[in-house]
Amino acid sequence: MTRAPLSPTPRSTPKRHGDRARSDRAELDAVLDEGLICHLGFVRDGAPVVLPTCYGRDGDTLFLHGSSGATSMMEGGKGVEVSVCVTLLDAIVYARSVFNHSANYRSVVVHGAARPLTTDVEKLHALEAITEHLAPGSWTHARQPDRKELAATAVLAIDLIEASLKVRTGPPGDDPEPGVWAGLLPVRQSFGVPESAPDADIDAPGHVVSRLA
Amino acid sequence: MTRAPLSPTPRSTPKRHGDRARSDRAELDAVLDEGLICHLGFVRDGAPVVLPTCYGRDGDTLFLHGSSGATSMMEGGKGVEVSVCVTLLDAIVYARSVFNHSANYRSVVVHGAARPLTTDVEKLHALEAITEHLAPGSWTHARQPDRKELAATAVLAIDLIEASLKVRTGPPGDDPEPGVWAGLLPVRQSFGVPESAPDADIDAPGHVVSRLA
Repeated sequence: MTRAPLSPTPRSTPKRHGDRARSDRAELDAVLDEGLICHLGFVRDGAPVVLPTCYGRDGDTLFLHGSSGATSMMEGGKGVEVSVCVTLLDAIVYARSVFNHSANYRSVVVHGAARPLTTDVEKLHALEAITEHLAPGSWTHARQPDRKELAATAVLAIDLIEASLKVRTGPPGDDPEPGVWAGLLPVRQSFGVPESAPDADIDAPGHVVSRLA
Repeated sequence: MTRAPLSPTPRSTPKRHGDRARSDRAELDAVLDEGLICHLGFVRDGAPVVLPTCYGRDGDTLFLHGSSGATSMMEGGKGVEVSVCVTLLDAIVYARSVFNHSANYRSVVVHGAARPLTTDVEKLHALEAITEHLAPGSWTHARQPDRKELAATAVLAIDLIEASLKVRTGPPGDDPEPGVWAGLLPVRQSFGVPESAPDADIDAPGHVVSRLA
């Protein structure tokens, strides 16, 4: 599949710690695929709003469930400028100085116009991507949206062109200091044992259980 | 300690799923205290920007490390409108229909003007809150900021007044469907075994190791 290159616009170029900027498209995709939720930013009445939401990706397109504020701004089918951030926190970095404390992380920031999808075909395609991102296997195991549900669901599409990736890895960078510890405290996100709904008549299927591995 | 009440302004009132809105100040504080990073949103050249950053809290004030964009907008000591979001993802909610798939989460959204701190006393107080939030115990174990480091660090303060908390808990809400699983897949964030820096001369101290419990 041919992929669009990442664009080096000023706003997709990190202002601080330029050494942490990465330009590898596959690395950026991997962060988007590993994350579970994103934070969506938009402007309402001149002020910023940030909300968590679910997302999915297909190639160079990011799909979002339309959130409250964004949805209200999409009337008339106009696109709205958004910023979407997906962050994976890998470790807390303990240094000898408070000043050099930090975090190891991988973070993608996407800028662009969020285009509300209008046709059922487009919306179904996007919802499959969002569902399979959040709950792989559910698109075929669960009942797919009917006409009424589809009409009630707002979906946004954003081109993954103006996007940047920042990564910090490795130990703290300051000088040794006798008797002061420095190192990493890894942070991990993991899944727990599935909890069946009280009225579920089967055990958690393989596509759910396999996520614990 | 006397605490300011949460304000019910339109933008701090969730537009969707009003039933998930909570007004308990202690519950809101607990989410801020449990989270490790926040997502900071601001407006640059008319467009939204969302970035991850560290934060700390002292009573009704949220402190943030000044980020790239926000810092560039603070010149002259003016406050800038921001939105700060801290999200704890608790579970993925599998329903019988794709439409009812969801996530259990606790999410705080704060709106307000971010005030850049200017005096050393204010900045030290805020940096202690940020450090003790990210790495409890480091403020006294590690070397505190010297004059030069303090000058190089931008810190923002935001009043925790216009803030809202949304929470989803419990199983999926749709009707039973034979042979289709429904339930929760818990999502957990945990700490791994500390990894000492190659040049560290002591083992990870108690204030680090105790976080694994």
